[in-house]
Amino acid sequence: MKPLAITLGDAAGIGPEIILKAFRDAPDILRGCFVAGDAAVLRRAASWVPGVELALIQAPREAGVQASQTVPVLQVATLDGEAAVGQVSAAAGRLAGRCVSWAAQAALRGEIAGLVTAPLHKEALSAAGAPYDAFPGHTELLQAEAAAFLGKPVTEVPVRMMLANEELRTVLVSIHVSLRAALDAVTQDNVLQTLRITHRALSLLLGRKPRIAVAGLNPHAGEGGLFGREEIEAIVPAMMEARAEGLDVHGPLAPDTVFMRARRGEFDVVVAMYHDQGLIPVKYLGVEQGVNVTLGLPLVRTSPDHGTAFDIAGTGKADASSLVEAVRMAQRLARRG
Amino acid sequence: MKPLAITLGDAAGIGPEIILKAFRDAPDILRGCFVAGDAAVLRRAASWVPGVELALIQAPREAGVQASQTVPVLQVATLDGEAAVGQVSAAAGRLAGRCVSWAAQAALRGEIAGLVTAPLHKEALSAAGAPYDAFPGHTELLQAEAAAFLGKPVTEVPVRMMLANEELRTVLVSIHVSLRAALDAVTQDNVLQTLRITHRALSLLLGRKPRIAVAGLNPHAGEGGLFGREEIEAIVPAMMEARAEGLDVHGPLAPDTVFMRARRGEFDVVVAMYHDQGLIPVKYLGVEQGVNVTLGLPLVRTSPDHGTAFDIAGTGKADASSLVEAVRMAQRLARRG
Repeated sequence: MKPLAITLGDAAGIGPEIILKAFRDAPDILRGCFVAGDAAVLRRAASWVPGVELALIQAPREAGVQASQTVPVLQVATLDGEAAVGQVSAAAGRLAGRCVSWAAQAALRGEIAGLVTAPLHKEALSAAGAPYDAFPGHTELLQAEAAAFLGKPVTEVPVRMMLANEELRTVLVSIHVSLRAALDAVTQDNVLQTLRITHRALSLLLGRKPRIAVAGLNPHAGEGGLFGREEIEAIVPAMMEARAEGLDVHGPLAPDTVFMRARRGEFDVVVAMYHDQGLIPVKYLGVEQGVNVTLGLPLVRTSPDHGTAFDIAGTGKADASSLVEAVRMAQRLARRG
Repeated sequence: MKPLAITLGDAAGIGPEIILKAFRDAPDILRGCFVAGDAAVLRRAASWVPGVELALIQAPREAGVQASQTVPVLQVATLDGEAAVGQVSAAAGRLAGRCVSWAAQAALRGEIAGLVTAPLHKEALSAAGAPYDAFPGHTELLQAEAAAFLGKPVTEVPVRMMLANEELRTVLVSIHVSLRAALDAVTQDNVLQTLRITHRALSLLLGRKPRIAVAGLNPHAGEGGLFGREEIEAIVPAMMEARAEGLDVHGPLAPDTVFMRARRGEFDVVVAMYHDQGLIPVKYLGVEQGVNVTLGLPLVRTSPDHGTAFDIAGTGKADASSLVEAVRMAQRLARRG
């Protein structure tokens, strides 16, 4: 497998230190990974993560030949200002954005197997200036890079977020919009597109046809139209089209039990109609192991399911386990790809 | 403590058999309970629940003096037709309704400590004729009985559903309406009423001031108005009024982590803005132990968190553990009341 890039994330947050911890504490899993970042930022983080050594590399292919627990670093961008720990800064936002752009382009050119992104901070990205201030987060930045590479408008590179942990996978029809806007996004087209993206990604991940559960939007999935008609008017028609294309889709199922059923093994993934419908069950047992996967892009991208945690950055307390899981997930996707 | 009535539920469903199993398998917990039902229906169920004996009693107070594992039965109504196992029937609907009406009135008069209701079937209740066909379920029937007893219109007897298991309690602002209608129900008045009802019930249950978490409606609780304004316009104003009344309310908190936080012990209860927001986490770990509590009524009422399960009725397979938990919850509420 080609090397996997881990992007630095916001230099003022927990990103640099959880990257170092991951290499130190899970060396077998991190073998073949390297940091796309700035060595100086990592050196600072190393002062509160004892027992790690950095090794500057000149190209991704040098990642695999380092000694275990050594952290291979490719200097893809340099901090051009201050980035005090726990503080929003334009310089940290720019650096984080540049690392992601570099890694996205490397992945699109086929030089690396994919990217695992440490968390960035929305406000820092917004303060970073053009082009980064145009993107609310990683997903939109990656979508723009992919669209530019493919020569398509971004609207023709639809993406969906998958959240996964050891027990449950869920793909969301919409994410960061009000619940009222999320209701309006439950259209036949959006649901069908979500089903197709889910099928493609899970087929890759599992090596077989995935069993896709589709959650209803309304309580009891509408109970035959008694509590809302979106199931009848949008979800079922989308499912019928998906079935005609050979997809193994089940539902629409009562939202309050479909996740429990998937957790018990009845389905491989649940397509959720809105952000919290999918994220409440994924996060219920604890956020440490959650992994975020961007589906629909012509590259592999995963990330831990938490933010920059400015409040504990610099203390060495941050838990790297979600990042380690994100690496494992990226490796699995890249191996099958 | 006064005796606790367990109402028969739909005679064609699993109600009668889980009642018998509960008395047989959890005699210490069921001590002081009796069945408000029809002995003939229970005798039929006894044929697929071996090892139970029925004892007809003449008044609730005789419930506590029966031998362990004997099931005290008060004949409060009689099946007036056929009730084939697993089939919807008007006779079973009427019988179920009559048992509930009897128990509600007995509780309102102070003759019993409260009622635990075995599941009834909506269609059977609807087929049962007046007055039962006017009620979609237990809650509305109990609300009508309470209103009649108090001499008030039902609108002045607001009720809320609480779902609880060993790990989590949640009280819902609305229940069986479309998600679109549930959004419209997130008003300052409805949220405040839910907070007051929650505070009163949990104070009783815990014997101290409850720590109430309030879930947002939108992703990330709206992120300061970026993803919806219901938090700013309805939820926060209701919380401020509640705080002025001395309630310990926290939030509005991100819906995707508030339940995980409550499960870890940070809060005693989560006020959820709609049906699935609260029920997805409560049911995620399995439905067997869930208990449904009707709050706001001048009586104690709990029920298991499942339906009549016509598909397995009469096989003896039904699991009584949710009913046993409902009995324990009713005892706790009645003891403090």
